Amino acid sequence: MKLNVLQSGIADDVVMGKDVTIVMPVNLYGCTLGDGCKIGPFTEITRGVTIGHRTKIQSHSFICEKVTIGNDCFIGHGVMFINDVFRTGKPAGGDKSKWVPTLIADRVTIGSNATILPVSICSDVVIGAGAVVTKDITVPGIYAGNPATFLRGL
Amino acid sequence: MKLNVLQSGIADDVVMGKDVTIVMPVNLYGCTLGDGCKIGPFTEITRGVTIGHRTKIQSHSFICEKVTIGNDCFIGHGVMFINDVFRTGKPAGGDKSKWVPTLIADRVTIGSNATILPVSICSDVVIGAGAVVTKDITVPGIYAGNPATFLRGL
Amino acid sequence: MKLNVLQSGIADDVVMGKDVTIVMPVNLYGCTLGDGCKIGPFTEITRGVTIGHRTKIQSHSFICEKVTIGNDCFIGHGVMFINDVFRTGKPAGGDKSKWVPTLIADRVTIGSNATILPVSICSDVVIGAGAVVTKDITVPGIYAGNPATFLRGL
Repeated sequence: MKLNVLQSGIADDVVMGKDVTIVMPVNLYGCTLGDGCKIGPFTEITRGVTIGHRTKIQSHSFICEKVTIGNDCFIGHGVMFINDVFRTGKPAGGDKSKWVPTLIADRVTIGSNATILPVSICSDVVIGAGAVVTKDITVPGIYAGNPATFLRGL
Repeated sequence: MKLNVLQSGIADDVVMGKDVTIVMPVNLYGCTLGDGCKIGPFTEITRGVTIGHRTKIQSHSFICEKVTIGNDCFIGHGVMFINDVFRTGKPAGGDKSKWVPTLIADRVTIGSNATILPVSICSDVVIGAGAVVTKDITVPGIYAGNPATFLRGL
Repeated sequence: MKLNVLQSGIADDVVMGKDVTIVMPVNLYGCTLGDGCKIGPFTEITRGVTIGHRTKIQSHSFICEKVTIGNDCFIGHGVMFINDVFRTGKPAGGDKSKWVPTLIADRVTIGSNATILPVSICSDVVIGAGAVVTKDITVPGIYAGNPATFLRGL
């Protein structure tokens, strides 16, 4: 019967390394940020996410539970990660056993407005702006398009 | 001659059902939210929008005038709705007679970063992440791509 | 060793013309806004950007350094501009000599969730919602898709 208004912010349970920079407003809770991370404004990073050292998360991006990002990565603006592929034709809701992990290795650069389904991406990959990544990437190089395909080596 | 700075928030003219949860900051005005709705941070929902019971609007989404969303829907992160298709080669501006409605029925799940042109979507549809929906959807199932096409039944 | 928390806002070095409207929260710094501009909430406009008279920037959009936008343009919701195409397979970082400019002329309308690589777009162009613009546009008309291609004249 009531309206429940919650405030965004940096929750007390966020674990941070040294020299982290955050531009407010953000909504960060239950996540781990490595040394030297930079987090832009209008971002949300949720419970259980781990982000490596010196990785930058640009404005307007959303990083969901079950996502792990390595060191020296660059996540552009408006990038959306996904852990629920609606396998049963609807959201998994609270049933986290249906959520699928995403693993981003080191030195991965993701262009703005890209969408990352639950996949693994190996080190030294560039994802073009606006791409939709639907499959694992195991070979370093540049990928773009919807769905994303291999464009060329680095 | 002046700078006009307006504040986002939950306007007094928002009509809400029971047990609505909202994570600030948001910009909500002139809209109707059903019982049990959940509205994520960094969302904007504008005048005249109606959202049904138990529907969830995730962070970073924008829902514009002339959009109606049914019950038990899930609107992912960074989803953008559209009411102006620039028919005359430019924005309709204040001429709302040129705006086109969108009607989302019940149990519709829309993946993150999807873009929804003014269309009707029937009940029991899943729209894949990053899809651009340009035409009415009248058959339940899973749709994805730019432009979105039918992938498979549920 | 320290956490550095910065606040978004309208920085003192933003240059504004007459009758500018801004809906907070935004993150604007070092940019120039012409007369009659309207800037929606959850936007970021960075150093060196110039925006012409009567141009509207809708919610959730990001406009980066080296972007110039003309008069009477309409930038939809969730539009992302880009100045770094990761030519060396990684972000240019602080090396601005590797950033590439974008020039948007007059009366250009960009649909929501579009992604604009560093390009020039001539006057009187409409970019469809969800499009990814990867090449210069020199002929007025309507363009859409990923990558964006010419659909028809105005």
